[in-house]
Amino acid sequence: MTQSNPTFETLRYAVEDGVATITLHRPNQLNAFTGQMMQDLIAAFDATDADDNVRAVIVTGSGRAFCAGADLSAGGATFDFEKRYGAKPETAHRDGGGRVSLRIFRSLKPVIAAVNGAAVGVGVTMQLPMDIRLASTDAKFGFVFARRGITPEAASSWFLSRVVGISTALEWCYTGRVFSAQEALERGLVRSLHAPEDLLPAARAIAREIADNAAPVSVAISRQLIWRMAGASHPMEAHKLDSRAIQSRGRSADVKEGVSAFLEKRPAAFPERVSQDMPDFFDWGGEPPFA
Amino acid sequence: MTQSNPTFETLRYAVEDGVATITLHRPNQLNAFTGQMMQDLIAAFDATDADDNVRAVIVTGSGRAFCAGADLSAGGATFDFEKRYGAKPETAHRDGGGRVSLRIFRSLKPVIAAVNGAAVGVGVTMQLPMDIRLASTDAKFGFVFARRGITPEAASSWFLSRVVGISTALEWCYTGRVFSAQEALERGLVRSLHAPEDLLPAARAIAREIADNAAPVSVAISRQLIWRMAGASHPMEAHKLDSRAIQSRGRSADVKEGVSAFLEKRPAAFPERVSQDMPDFFDWGGEPPFA
Amino acid sequence: MTQSNPTFETLRYAVEDGVATITLHRPNQLNAFTGQMMQDLIAAFDATDADDNVRAVIVTGSGRAFCAGADLSAGGATFDFEKRYGAKPETAHRDGGGRVSLRIFRSLKPVIAAVNGAAVGVGVTMQLPMDIRLASTDAKFGFVFARRGITPEAASSWFLSRVVGISTALEWCYTGRVFSAQEALERGLVRSLHAPEDLLPAARAIAREIADNAAPVSVAISRQLIWRMAGASHPMEAHKLDSRAIQSRGRSADVKEGVSAFLEKRPAAFPERVSQDMPDFFDWGGEPPFA
Repeated sequence: MTQSNPTFETLRYAVEDGVATITLHRPNQLNAFTGQMMQDLIAAFDATDADDNVRAVIVTGSGRAFCAGADLSAGGATFDFEKRYGAKPETAHRDGGGRVSLRIFRSLKPVIAAVNGAAVGVGVTMQLPMDIRLASTDAKFGFVFARRGITPEAASSWFLSRVVGISTALEWCYTGRVFSAQEALERGLVRSLHAPEDLLPAARAIAREIADNAAPVSVAISRQLIWRMAGASHPMEAHKLDSRAIQSRGRSADVKEGVSAFLEKRPAAFPERVSQDMPDFFDWGGEPPFA
Repeated sequence: MTQSNPTFETLRYAVEDGVATITLHRPNQLNAFTGQMMQDLIAAFDATDADDNVRAVIVTGSGRAFCAGADLSAGGATFDFEKRYGAKPETAHRDGGGRVSLRIFRSLKPVIAAVNGAAVGVGVTMQLPMDIRLASTDAKFGFVFARRGITPEAASSWFLSRVVGISTALEWCYTGRVFSAQEALERGLVRSLHAPEDLLPAARAIAREIADNAAPVSVAISRQLIWRMAGASHPMEAHKLDSRAIQSRGRSADVKEGVSAFLEKRPAAFPERVSQDMPDFFDWGGEPPFA
Repeated sequence: MTQSNPTFETLRYAVEDGVATITLHRPNQLNAFTGQMMQDLIAAFDATDADDNVRAVIVTGSGRAFCAGADLSAGGATFDFEKRYGAKPETAHRDGGGRVSLRIFRSLKPVIAAVNGAAVGVGVTMQLPMDIRLASTDAKFGFVFARRGITPEAASSWFLSRVVGISTALEWCYTGRVFSAQEALERGLVRSLHAPEDLLPAARAIAREIADNAAPVSVAISRQLIWRMAGASHPMEAHKLDSRAIQSRGRSADVKEGVSAFLEKRPAAFPERVSQDMPDFFDWGGEPPFA
């Protein structure tokens, strides 16, 4: 498949058969997270959202790690944003991991993490707004912040308890211990474990099932409805949004094709595209202001 | 037990020994959901709330399905509310599944789903505001919306992640695949599996345990406190409500009977009734406006 | 270790090697909860927060019970706050269990419940704002409120569904049944079961792992971030708070030590203390008003 894909300094980006694979690619630094990687990841999710050929996104790491956390080459000054970037103490400096998490939160495409190795610090918190996590049996994880003297970031205090429950979230962040793929499975951080060579095929199989069967606009709306309602106070908020979604989708070309295909027992060929056919009753890419 | 129960076009409704059983009853259409069934379900939950003889509610299906989803006899125009009902694009049409879900959300009686067979689309989303789901080993489930070109409805974007977690909610809605009772059990959608002939007895056993032991007004308040606090921002909201609940219940005839019976090691006979003894510090049946 | 610790009428309080143990101590009354115990628990958590030597808190019970619930020696008038305390029906009387729960919610130290025996009524609801629950195989649990004619208290309608999911929360509160440690484990109320003699050692091992490795100020901030974000509507709320937390911690003496120790592969000796070094961008001990 020949296609002009964006290129990035710290990532590899490829689209094949409707599935984008974003590979964290600083293998000699165990894919440690930098300011450049933050920018690249945000741009990569802008690209997957904009490309109608992308029906699902897989995120994995190059080499033996997924992401070893923040690049610590600046040593004890790593997190001193005032010294490094001139941030002012009285002005909030936006956390880089959080910028990435909130961008993934707004994604219009499903996101599958294929955790091939160590995922520590921001290397694991960036996975939390992804939808489904698969791990190699070689993977390991750690919410190590308290062992470094910092605190959980990347909005993980919102995400982690919604993925693994509040007791596990607290235990992992208090102890800061590095734990096995098996513990990640047992506590619900990952959906399934795979031999290293089976990891990407397993992620691709889920991506395929989505790409082969689901209407892209329906998937994009579903993603935003479910993530946004995770924090909503009353189901009436969902009823307001999904009533409009059903009303809008119900007169679409997609539903005519989807229902007809079902009744005729044949695969559906959905005509509508995320780039142009998202209904306008909601600001799908919107978010509350930071300040 | 002879009693004047309401009758419905699409449901069977029976009360026996304090337990109401609502049976979706369009067996030749696999109990497919229609506008009439929506109205009947809302009226049935009005009836269970109003009848002090009803201590718990079981919902099940007639024949081999629980509910096969929306009736698709209108084909590709099924969800075109403008064409079918004259809904205007600029005015929100309230989703019928959501009307049912929100009515069940406000129920003052515990609701147990006994899922006897296929439960697809609104056939499964209507179960999410029910309290406890039991399934036959013959049951199967599917959040098939994206395969039809529509989106999850019935406020399920609020409910589903609270029942099975956000990753499973997304995976099921993205793929739209039909899955087994076993997967529903493993992922937490249902509490337990039963041989077909044991399903209703198991549901009735839970209903019996409630009816035989718990004060009806206490159960009604508990239901509303727990469901409403699932979306509350701070435990202070619960403290405000449960302080008033305890204060009100603490001077009731029920608590005098309940504590005395416990100290005397005898069954309690609670005198208070949901129809007349709900404390007035909260609008138990209230909900935010739709518009 | 000689130290001037506070003393309480209904509790034993000891600090050893950085771990405070609070023992409910009315063994002849199965540690039944009284107004005095409420005041003592609140004061004990004030003490653990104020003492920088306390890095984690364990709560357990004296004798064969953890806490058998409210002291019922006043019989059917137990919960009649108007008769007993002169509370006025038109004025909300603050539930005592809720005062304790909200105090624990605000704790700056990790809290581990070591459930040695029966934990019923407020004896179990007071555990829900604790972070991690371990149980003896002898423990049993019961949300028995509806069997006494009252309702779940101690803000448990907010906490319980966040710990065990909404279906289990409802089932336990509807039936009011007393259930085994094994069921508590299977449904996620407790993290692990232990032989009675192994319970406190297991709790201390977790406390040790925290005390030996984590920066105390990082742990205190982590606790508040994770608990408070459990009810937040959007991850932007976490991003706002954790951006400030990272910025503040990033220029701290702790992070310089933490990162340096990690790079030098030696244990960290964190200099900062909860009593004086909590950053001031947030009111860590604040809560919404009751009235």
